[in-house]
Amino acid sequence: MAANQAKEENVVYIGKKPIMSYVLAVITQFGSGQKEVKIKARGRAISRAVDVAQIVKRRINQDIKIKSIEIGSEERENQGKKTYVSTIEIVLAK
Amino acid sequence: MAANQAKEENVVYIGKKPIMSYVLAVITQFGSGQKEVKIKARGRAISRAVDVAQIVKRRINQDIKIKSIEIGSEERENQGKKTYVSTIEIVLAK
Repeated sequence: MAANQAKEENVVYIGKKPIMSYVLAVITQFGSGQKEVKIKARGRAISRAVDVAQIVKRRINQDIKIKSIEIGSEERENQGKKTYVSTIEIVLAK
Repeated sequence: MAANQAKEENVVYIGKKPIMSYVLAVITQFGSGQKEVKIKARGRAISRAVDVAQIVKRRINQDIKIKSIEIGSEERENQGKKTYVSTIEIVLAK
């Protein structure tokens, strides 16, 4: 991973890929020496973010704990109309 | 609400109804004197649980805060095969 990506280095954004690819991304981050990894998701991907956190914690490495969970909203503009999308940030820590 | 339902009185389970019906259920609980309301969901409904919490907090009553968020897994048996479903519990408090 390039040094100039350091700021977001320990963040995994959940999208529409198979869930195990995000699990792998998280454990790769921990494997590269991170003490914390943030899992972020919006809208419908929120359920998948929880799945990823639970799979990492339960199946992959039981030393990894959930440090914090935050939910929020992001404002979006859709055809001139303001809408909100929910967000989640789950911090996993070793 | 019957007295014998007291144990689960302040819990709103998120299913497939329109989201505003769960928002209404939460504010009805607060309106009936509850200081805390728990929003629970499983699987794909987790994203909707976050939506409900955010709508209550942001649009309906800004005195209502998120007190805690917990995620977990429930074991299920599906055709003799063990599977897990993720869960969330969001506690809202006045």
